[in-house]
Amino acid sequence: MSTGRVNILFAAPAHLWDQYRDPLAQALAEAGVLADLSRDHAPEAVDWIVYAPGGPLSDFSPFPRAKGVLSLWAGVERIVPNATLRLPLARMVDEGLRQGMIEWVVGHALRHHLGMDAHILRQDGVWRHEAPKLASERPVTVLGLGELGLACALALAALGFPVTGWSRRPKAEPGLARCLSGRELLQDALRGAEIVVLLTPLTSDTENLMDAERLALPARGFVLLNPGRGALIDDGALLAALGSGQVGHATLDVFRQEPLPPDHPFWAHPRVTVTPHIAAETRPATASRVIAENVRRGQAGEPLLYLVDRKAGY
Amino acid sequence: MSTGRVNILFAAPAHLWDQYRDPLAQALAEAGVLADLSRDHAPEAVDWIVYAPGGPLSDFSPFPRAKGVLSLWAGVERIVPNATLRLPLARMVDEGLRQGMIEWVVGHALRHHLGMDAHILRQDGVWRHEAPKLASERPVTVLGLGELGLACALALAALGFPVTGWSRRPKAEPGLARCLSGRELLQDALRGAEIVVLLTPLTSDTENLMDAERLALPARGFVLLNPGRGALIDDGALLAALGSGQVGHATLDVFRQEPLPPDHPFWAHPRVTVTPHIAAETRPATASRVIAENVRRGQAGEPLLYLVDRKAGY
Repeated sequence: MSTGRVNILFAAPAHLWDQYRDPLAQALAEAGVLADLSRDHAPEAVDWIVYAPGGPLSDFSPFPRAKGVLSLWAGVERIVPNATLRLPLARMVDEGLRQGMIEWVVGHALRHHLGMDAHILRQDGVWRHEAPKLASERPVTVLGLGELGLACALALAALGFPVTGWSRRPKAEPGLARCLSGRELLQDALRGAEIVVLLTPLTSDTENLMDAERLALPARGFVLLNPGRGALIDDGALLAALGSGQVGHATLDVFRQEPLPPDHPFWAHPRVTVTPHIAAETRPATASRVIAENVRRGQAGEPLLYLVDRKAGY
Repeated sequence: MSTGRVNILFAAPAHLWDQYRDPLAQALAEAGVLADLSRDHAPEAVDWIVYAPGGPLSDFSPFPRAKGVLSLWAGVERIVPNATLRLPLARMVDEGLRQGMIEWVVGHALRHHLGMDAHILRQDGVWRHEAPKLASERPVTVLGLGELGLACALALAALGFPVTGWSRRPKAEPGLARCLSGRELLQDALRGAEIVVLLTPLTSDTENLMDAERLALPARGFVLLNPGRGALIDDGALLAALGSGQVGHATLDVFRQEPLPPDHPFWAHPRVTVTPHIAAETRPATASRVIAENVRRGQAGEPLLYLVDRKAGY
């Protein structure tokens, strides 16, 4: 305290220290924060904790003067249940992450909409002049209208898809064809959709959101895109629905276990595409600026950005 | 003339009559035009000619009272050189066609940008956590800023790509990173691009626009998308540039000869994707409304929409 420096504890797996050390130092300097960034502060000296699960820290009790925990990741479902955490928790909302997510979702939606795989996999010299229908004729449903879900829903709507957005709490978005909310309207949101995008946070309410019953609601042969969280899907129910033809294709970026084990049936299934958790990558440069801004705000007594509602779980 | 009816000659290949007969009649009725639509009007009785090449009509001389030729297609390069045509010529600008073109261009740009083929073709159980760079780091050049080129350029820019647009005549589009024009700036427009989209009209000026010299200008390994016209590309130069690695991939929707012959090397090349002229399909329902609106305008003495500048060739 006598130094006037802000002590920031970096508590995350070691490889992240290599990635974040320099960008964080630079972002803090640019935000005008005189910081001492380290992995080794004494607990009683720590002002802020920059955090990702899987590192050395799991007990948040011994930090008497810490003002908050700043997550490196957008998803906080592994932090929220920690009973020792009584400090304010802010999640990551990174512009690069949002952009990457939009690109992945729009790209894979168009891939399936245009029937691109047939052209990529079957160049057999036969001229099949069959134009796909227009996006305006292909209903899409996006589950989750947070930071990422809404951005993706609006990008799909801008391309002409009639987009139904569904969220836990009511939202009104004039750019979308329909905005539905609450568990009681989830069935309506899914019914008849030809492409379904999962971008809800993972909570006890949303685990296995796509179970056998809900997978049966969209149009037969629909495409499921999951760039959200692996546990939103009941994997066994999905494999059964792929087998019956109810699901035409599943393109999955997230899994219950990552890396996805080499012998997992998703890898071998001809109508499943696995992408290795690349839809939305938090970028150290842009993410460091978000962390630095929150430290600056906290030190200045301003409200933190992106505070997690611990009860809601996100 | 005594009947008060407008005589419209449908002069196009026979299969189009089956597709357009009903939608055209309906669109004309909705536009308030009392029309006699037929393939058999006596030449001297014809008021308007709805036209596509490849049908019964190639001599436009014997139509003394005709007021104009209304093309069913957007591209008019096979009509413009016809010396017997002295009537006003309007090309097709169809909302469905523009939408389809945007979807094809954005979809295939994202396919290559995201490196999707690796995920589609190589599901080998190996978790390669390599996120693609963001669209904002991937320069795109669109050649041609007409109706279709501009719409595609703006859709790509909306997703974050830094888009350079190039056109024959100067245009200013605040949504694009750069607007260049004229033959003398074509090199600047191409240099360093990682994705190049061809959407210029086909004229004597643009035939073989992408020759060996110009294919050498974009970034090494760049992706070429051609939903415009086949003859914009020197096919031999493209195959050579694919062979050298200068072109990383070519995704082609249009060809000098269509259907593309089964033994053409484009079909077999592992880094060429052939799509069978489906990027932009003129839709009878929407196209018929454009034709009907132009007949209504012409009969009311209003200027026609989408008149072709015969000298420019489009």
